[in-house]
Amino acid sequence: MADPRFFKNVGPFSLNEILSHCNIYNNELDGDLIIDDVSYLGASSKGKISFMDDSSLINDLKKTKTEFCFISNEYITYAPKSISLVICDQPRSAYALAAQKFYPDVSDVSMIYKNSSSKKNLDIHNTCKISDSTYISEGVKIGKNSIIGPNTVIGKGVIIGNNCSIHSNTTITHCLIGNNVEILPGTRIGQDGFGFIPNKEKHIKIPQLGRVLIGDNVNIGSNCTIDRGAGPDTVIGNGCFLDNLVHIAHNVILGSGCIIAGQVGIAGSTILGDYVMIAGQGGISGHLKIGSGTKFAVKSGVINDIPPGGTYGGFPAVPIRDWHRQTLTIKNISKINRGKK
Amino acid sequence: MADPRFFKNVGPFSLNEILSHCNIYNNELDGDLIIDDVSYLGASSKGKISFMDDSSLINDLKKTKTEFCFISNEYITYAPKSISLVICDQPRSAYALAAQKFYPDVSDVSMIYKNSSSKKNLDIHNTCKISDSTYISEGVKIGKNSIIGPNTVIGKGVIIGNNCSIHSNTTITHCLIGNNVEILPGTRIGQDGFGFIPNKEKHIKIPQLGRVLIGDNVNIGSNCTIDRGAGPDTVIGNGCFLDNLVHIAHNVILGSGCIIAGQVGIAGSTILGDYVMIAGQGGISGHLKIGSGTKFAVKSGVINDIPPGGTYGGFPAVPIRDWHRQTLTIKNISKINRGKK
Amino acid sequence: MADPRFFKNVGPFSLNEILSHCNIYNNELDGDLIIDDVSYLGASSKGKISFMDDSSLINDLKKTKTEFCFISNEYITYAPKSISLVICDQPRSAYALAAQKFYPDVSDVSMIYKNSSSKKNLDIHNTCKISDSTYISEGVKIGKNSIIGPNTVIGKGVIIGNNCSIHSNTTITHCLIGNNVEILPGTRIGQDGFGFIPNKEKHIKIPQLGRVLIGDNVNIGSNCTIDRGAGPDTVIGNGCFLDNLVHIAHNVILGSGCIIAGQVGIAGSTILGDYVMIAGQGGISGHLKIGSGTKFAVKSGVINDIPPGGTYGGFPAVPIRDWHRQTLTIKNISKINRGKK
Repeated sequence: MADPRFFKNVGPFSLNEILSHCNIYNNELDGDLIIDDVSYLGASSKGKISFMDDSSLINDLKKTKTEFCFISNEYITYAPKSISLVICDQPRSAYALAAQKFYPDVSDVSMIYKNSSSKKNLDIHNTCKISDSTYISEGVKIGKNSIIGPNTVIGKGVIIGNNCSIHSNTTITHCLIGNNVEILPGTRIGQDGFGFIPNKEKHIKIPQLGRVLIGDNVNIGSNCTIDRGAGPDTVIGNGCFLDNLVHIAHNVILGSGCIIAGQVGIAGSTILGDYVMIAGQGGISGHLKIGSGTKFAVKSGVINDIPPGGTYGGFPAVPIRDWHRQTLTIKNISKINRGKK
Repeated sequence: MADPRFFKNVGPFSLNEILSHCNIYNNELDGDLIIDDVSYLGASSKGKISFMDDSSLINDLKKTKTEFCFISNEYITYAPKSISLVICDQPRSAYALAAQKFYPDVSDVSMIYKNSSSKKNLDIHNTCKISDSTYISEGVKIGKNSIIGPNTVIGKGVIIGNNCSIHSNTTITHCLIGNNVEILPGTRIGQDGFGFIPNKEKHIKIPQLGRVLIGDNVNIGSNCTIDRGAGPDTVIGNGCFLDNLVHIAHNVILGSGCIIAGQVGIAGSTILGDYVMIAGQGGISGHLKIGSGTKFAVKSGVINDIPPGGTYGGFPAVPIRDWHRQTLTIKNISKINRGKK
Repeated sequence: MADPRFFKNVGPFSLNEILSHCNIYNNELDGDLIIDDVSYLGASSKGKISFMDDSSLINDLKKTKTEFCFISNEYITYAPKSISLVICDQPRSAYALAAQKFYPDVSDVSMIYKNSSSKKNLDIHNTCKISDSTYISEGVKIGKNSIIGPNTVIGKGVIIGNNCSIHSNTTITHCLIGNNVEILPGTRIGQDGFGFIPNKEKHIKIPQLGRVLIGDNVNIGSNCTIDRGAGPDTVIGNGCFLDNLVHIAHNVILGSGCIIAGQVGIAGSTILGDYVMIAGQGGISGHLKIGSGTKFAVKSGVINDIPPGGTYGGFPAVPIRDWHRQTLTIKNISKINRGKK
């Protein structure tokens, strides 16, 4: 499933090869079966191996078209009979190790950024203005009238639309960008998400095999970080405006027209609707759904799903009037307590 | 008003040309009148067009020397009779569109960063040490004994004083810098502020036509972002020290000797007095006035004007003793509540 | 004590030269005594000059092997008789000025980043892949199979181990890096810490004479900032994983396997044990000790020492159950107050 523009799959491998790499030995399946690739349950298909280790994935498991699945005992009963189950204690770790085997070069900076002497298959429109110290890797496509500043690095296979302005000292990899997009200096797009399995001996990295998809008319400030997806993509919808030092984690989806102020952070896999506004230094936890048209005051800390349309503040974020009432209550009570002394 | 070192005004235009560009048709003024430039009310003069759409600007309106003004109905009565009023529903949008017409190249990265072959009018003192991979654009001036690190980009027209150390991988545009200034790696100075008009169809960018002015003896940490002003300038006063990952938005003014710790953010148009100290991760909302000598504890969230001299903490920030009392009160009350259960 | 790979000591100087530079005149010691270097009390030895101005340093003072010490009157009684005391009002300022005299080039970017034509003493294994636009300074050593991305700057004397991936547009100075370390784009490691003495006339910079030591199997996200130590080193232990936009201040020590999420900040001289986990936007104040195995919820603000093993949340951070109880109490009380109106 990983986009071959950005990732090189060195498989297929036999099931035995995979199991041996993952240190799984008590398996009842035919070891000669061929596995083509890893994939998340939701996007998987024949020839792929996925993992199942969390109740939030039960629906994905029931509907998945995956052929193989690393799975822990407690979820076996939810699995369709069509799936070949690889039962193990640490399905996510097994997936991570398998993914490392299929994609050994995922962190190979040189693969992403080939030396300029080996550049090829560039498709850059002759109306573009590219600084002579821009670093453009192989397979890059850039549309009409786009401008790329000096000391910016455009990674292998990146596509940039028309009328884009990518400022200086920026890094863009594993990313497809629409038209009329402006990206200010120092922003990093497409690097590895923060995906790993904590482990006393040594944390196990999960290869991040997704991309960043950026729509049209998007503005991104300076020194932001937008990580690529872990398997799904990270998505910045049409017309989103991001201020400086914003952090967008892997798999996050921003709807259209969202406005994200300075130093906001959005944790992994959270989905925002359209026209969500987040004021400065706000933080949204991971795996949440934030309804369209919601607004969040400065320094909001959002740790629950939010329905569309309201305005929120505080931490944990509550409707803005409740937050004002809370801060007033605290003020009043602490005065009373003072009086008592 | 925009500094011609940094911005190219392609006007003048007739009023009719401007109105047509801004989609304003029901106008009673002479369409052949000539407009030279856009400008904010406070700094405007003959030949300029400004905008008026907010009660906070009434004083500016009364005193302005602008010749033309986009204005909404509710503020007409406050306007001096000398001004030619262009009445419209969205004065700020009209201003933004007019500014886009006068300054179409404001986001033209190539204008800022001409290829090295076209460098000219450089005025760099022969005692400077410039890395051979520094990217210096046209019209740059650098004083005695200054040092510029590798892969740093100095934009068109930037002026840097004596004894400055600009570290590597930094971007500086639209900026005038004093003497004895040190800027650590990865900091971005002078890029567009976060100025636009939210709009369902497509947010409308307001061309950012100001600069960043940096005084003497200033120290700026790494990976900071200091945006240029929207029309007024962003100002970092003499002797200010900024830590890493600090965000300074457009039009912010820091007085002398301010100390701003890591990950602090100051939102647009806020004015700090002298020797203000803000501890780590603090945030100051926009359009505030913060008195000289004030201090703010870590993670303070400041949403109101603050008089000079006190120490504050919490969010919303209150005098530090009140904040301590509040946190103690919350602790005590939640223990009592626990006891009741 | 400063590592000669990174810092050039232009001493020794006579005591009189030092005192004159520091504007100290009423001294009873022999002015012809020779001083070789500055040093912090804890690491000092014969020939060095340290400073003593804070009760937290009394134990260091009692055990120090320093020969000279700038000291204020109140601490004289704690000093071993073997030390030559230089009594003054501002011992830390005197130390800062003396350090500036011994290390005048500490901010000399050109010393760190010699022009490529003067590169020498490089020791880069022939299995490494170095981009042709990487900027590598003199004395750099890089182990087997390491990869350095384009537009990255590796400062003078830096050592990088085997199997490291240093992505593009990164800056690394004053740093020793282990094996299997990955550093994502735009991160800054080894720049000056935020060390100075606030002063109305002009803040006095304290030369930062430490390093950054990074263990094996460390992962560091994009656009992070890790400052070098002020005298002691900043240490990132084996197996630590840092997300994006993380700020690690000078002298901070992270134990093994710590997990630091996006936009976290850790202030100067704080020491974390092993396997500490800090969720997004958390902040840890300076000079604290955080026990092994502790976990901190999102946006935690930690202002006290924390024993090992617990889970904490809120600001000021308390045990997580107490924090939940606090937020619930505030919610309930503000509802009651509402009812009363």
